[in-house]
Amino acid sequence: MGYREIARGKQEQRRQRISKDWILAREHLASSNLLKVPEVCGILTGRELEITGKYDAVGLVEKIANGSFSAREVTLAFCKRAAIAQQLTNCLTEIFFEDAIQRAEELDRERAANPGTPLRPFHGLPISLKDSFKIPGYDSVIGMTCFANDPDQTYSPLAQLLLDAGAVLYCKTNVPQTMMTADSDNNVFGRTLNPTNINVTAGGSSGGEGALIAMRGSILGVGTDIAGSVRIPSHCNGIYGLRTSVGLVPMAGQKDPVAPGTDGVAPIAGPMATSLRACEHFMKTVAKSSAWKYDESCLHLNRWDTRPKHTNIRIGVAYNDGMFTPWPPVRRSMQQAVSKLRSAGIEMVDLKMPDLHEAVSTTYRMYSLDGCRFVQNLIKQGEEPEVESVKRTNLAAIPSATLDDFFALNAARSKVKEDFQKFWLDHELDALLCPPAATTATPLDEWKCITYTMLWNLLDYPALIIPIGKVTDQDVVDGVENAIFGEEDQQNYKLYTGPEDFKNVPTTTQLIGMRQEDDRLMGVAKMVDEALHSQSGPSKP
Amino acid sequence: MGYREIARGKQEQRRQRISKDWILAREHLASSNLLKVPEVCGILTGRELEITGKYDAVGLVEKIANGSFSAREVTLAFCKRAAIAQQLTNCLTEIFFEDAIQRAEELDRERAANPGTPLRPFHGLPISLKDSFKIPGYDSVIGMTCFANDPDQTYSPLAQLLLDAGAVLYCKTNVPQTMMTADSDNNVFGRTLNPTNINVTAGGSSGGEGALIAMRGSILGVGTDIAGSVRIPSHCNGIYGLRTSVGLVPMAGQKDPVAPGTDGVAPIAGPMATSLRACEHFMKTVAKSSAWKYDESCLHLNRWDTRPKHTNIRIGVAYNDGMFTPWPPVRRSMQQAVSKLRSAGIEMVDLKMPDLHEAVSTTYRMYSLDGCRFVQNLIKQGEEPEVESVKRTNLAAIPSATLDDFFALNAARSKVKEDFQKFWLDHELDALLCPPAATTATPLDEWKCITYTMLWNLLDYPALIIPIGKVTDQDVVDGVENAIFGEEDQQNYKLYTGPEDFKNVPTTTQLIGMRQEDDRLMGVAKMVDEALHSQSGPSKP
Repeated sequence: MGYREIARGKQEQRRQRISKDWILAREHLASSNLLKVPEVCGILTGRELEITGKYDAVGLVEKIANGSFSAREVTLAFCKRAAIAQQLTNCLTEIFFEDAIQRAEELDRERAANPGTPLRPFHGLPISLKDSFKIPGYDSVIGMTCFANDPDQTYSPLAQLLLDAGAVLYCKTNVPQTMMTADSDNNVFGRTLNPTNINVTAGGSSGGEGALIAMRGSILGVGTDIAGSVRIPSHCNGIYGLRTSVGLVPMAGQKDPVAPGTDGVAPIAGPMATSLRACEHFMKTVAKSSAWKYDESCLHLNRWDTRPKHTNIRIGVAYNDGMFTPWPPVRRSMQQAVSKLRSAGIEMVDLKMPDLHEAVSTTYRMYSLDGCRFVQNLIKQGEEPEVESVKRTNLAAIPSATLDDFFALNAARSKVKEDFQKFWLDHELDALLCPPAATTATPLDEWKCITYTMLWNLLDYPALIIPIGKVTDQDVVDGVENAIFGEEDQQNYKLYTGPEDFKNVPTTTQLIGMRQEDDRLMGVAKMVDEALHSQSGPSKP
Repeated sequence: MGYREIARGKQEQRRQRISKDWILAREHLASSNLLKVPEVCGILTGRELEITGKYDAVGLVEKIANGSFSAREVTLAFCKRAAIAQQLTNCLTEIFFEDAIQRAEELDRERAANPGTPLRPFHGLPISLKDSFKIPGYDSVIGMTCFANDPDQTYSPLAQLLLDAGAVLYCKTNVPQTMMTADSDNNVFGRTLNPTNINVTAGGSSGGEGALIAMRGSILGVGTDIAGSVRIPSHCNGIYGLRTSVGLVPMAGQKDPVAPGTDGVAPIAGPMATSLRACEHFMKTVAKSSAWKYDESCLHLNRWDTRPKHTNIRIGVAYNDGMFTPWPPVRRSMQQAVSKLRSAGIEMVDLKMPDLHEAVSTTYRMYSLDGCRFVQNLIKQGEEPEVESVKRTNLAAIPSATLDDFFALNAARSKVKEDFQKFWLDHELDALLCPPAATTATPLDEWKCITYTMLWNLLDYPALIIPIGKVTDQDVVDGVENAIFGEEDQQNYKLYTGPEDFKNVPTTTQLIGMRQEDDRLMGVAKMVDEALHSQSGPSKP
């Protein structure tokens, strides 16, 4: 079977798993405001619109807990809304709505049978997962034809943990071919669209999650991030997303586009959600579940203490990373954010980032130790062409490293980490605020700017995306001479063509904490989030 | 300069740093009981014998704190006793007694000037360090001629941490050439002898520490351990020693016999001491010092909670590791220990260890990823021959690995770790008791049996040596047919030639805890140590 046929088969299978009653009328598919379609298409009842539209994950768990909603009706509502999101943005890969509804019914029965038993932290909450997480009986294609029609046998450890915490799993979400680009486009399932504006990328590699959550087809999902794969789609779709420290959230047992045992920069799993407190609830639940019992590589930390270290917190601000000049809307929203935070009485310290060229080149080389041979072989096995965003990475030209090179890279990374920690301690930071990228969501296949996200992967610092607003009419194009970091920066800067082309595209900010202190970062983030959204804002729970 | 001349120079320099008044009379050098010499040689005053002989590190810190002893007199006493230990066992490398006494005087003055200020946790306590730790102005030869006469510029992070905690640093201790064998013998400083019986090895690579502490020339020192280098000399010399979990104690910034950035099995730094509570005090002090501020690779754990997880603790017992048959004294002391622990009401569960062949071969290959080329080059640079124990490792025959091999080894290790964790959880263990080796201290250059120690390095589980007693007349030789694990096992078994040859040689046991739960292991160890030494025993504080 050729790759096109395989794709047709997989897409047909996916379509079959959506009830006929949930198929959108043609007019809605062509809507100019995809985010509004769930409310106007008539597929969800008023109560289902309330369930999916009014609460964040914590609020919804509370509503289930107090008996306002059953697990079944919550699950059904999200299955419907996810089905709509799928039709509009192509965000899903595997659909298992029927299993989910069965599971929800079991949870309802369990609860009815044991009314005195305290509910688990995710009791009845539908949680979506990036395609790389394994669910028995379903594929983990991760954008590669060669993995189609090869159902998994076991749950990934994190999926198991979430089930043990009472969650309902109902769908998996789309990624790029190779999982290595920021455009969630592949030959099996096609491209995920950004529901805020279909002319810009939904981001990647957890782009399906980004689009699904922006559509509120999910209010809490899990992505993975080795260079920005949780944060870029969170940024592009205007949701919360956390790049967790390595070893806090089980990452083991996923389908992988690299050889087993690959070292270098470690990928992490992290929450993506419609609220900050949903991310916190996720992290706390994982911490309290002894994550290491699910994935032996997890730290025996078990701590969840969000109290900041100081009463008067101090946040550094880096307006750029010295590699890419922020676009006008990014600049403007950073300035507004900082001024709001200052008004809220938080000490904000303008900083110049240390020179990152060494860090960036070390990181790039660590991403491709095997010269990306493993993933190229996967593409070859699938007898499929590279999609555009993969083509642009020019995989064949990436050199491989020797073991000695790898050791030298380890040593270089240690130096970068030492220097950066010194920078952090010298400035007595509780957190650092910087853009998640120089850009908003870019035109399709044009994402170049991963320096703002990948630095925190190299350093292993937790980094959180907090939505701010969107591109506004103030964000007029300015001259390319404002891009001061060289040729590549100018190319990137020119991609911004003004507020008309980027209508409704989200703006966000990135808040970074100290390594393995994700709990403390969350404590600071609560203050920041509150200050940013005190008067208005799209993202209050 | 040839290597012999360099050695003469270094040894002469070392001799110069011992006051003439502290030189032992010839008769004492030939004593048949080295451990007694400090008490009978007349160099230490009665008060100095009390200071060095009567307390463990915690007790001594208390005595300094309550004003019974000044930091200066404590330091002077240990300098004297270390000088004696050096003359008897050749355990020291760099000596900086004068700096130490100055430092102690400063501490005394500081205290007198600020009588109300609480003392730091190591105020005035002399702590000895393995030769690999750097002290400005002194060499870190680590047994390699090429590193002689090249004084360091900075403190190793852990040395700095200890100073910040009030410690007095006064000497560094001997190691094997390459730091990769269990015999602390090299061309620069020669061989360290075991003060319990000079016919058996002092162990290694932290063998100088082992001998020095057995002599009570130190009551708390720091070794490092990648395969057993803290535990083997602790075992051979009958002291406490902890292989800490990776990332708890700063390991960075030491002189290293491998290339910067070398990966594989990570070495750790850990305490060696005359008491369990000294090891605990060390670990707690490091934890409370935010170790990561000294060494960015340390975990942001900061936890020190020795409460066991269960009220009724449950300890697994593995009498052998399925690779090497324990010698008669090892067998006997394990049995006696288990029976004592059972009498004390601790639940002891006899277990058969999982098959370790895969783990052992993975570990060996991870130790020598570069085919030991780096260390061979160091030997070449020093234009020196290999010492006997290094010769026996046959460095030149060790193959190097490719990056793909390394990834495959990582994957193999993950599997071993998963399997072992399952074993641990299935048996609901709070700790595991097993011998530190199939042997006691062996005849010189004969140490083969690192499987009992290195497994915990591969798995990254904390492992503690607890002294039990010594070889007794009951420990008669038995037939080699009792060694049931093959040829190599039989060779090893035959090395035991009966209690006469192994007179006074210590027996110990090894208590293992769950990864990164060194604090909890210490909690269990307290109960074990108490039970083992409730009636008698050499090692009560």
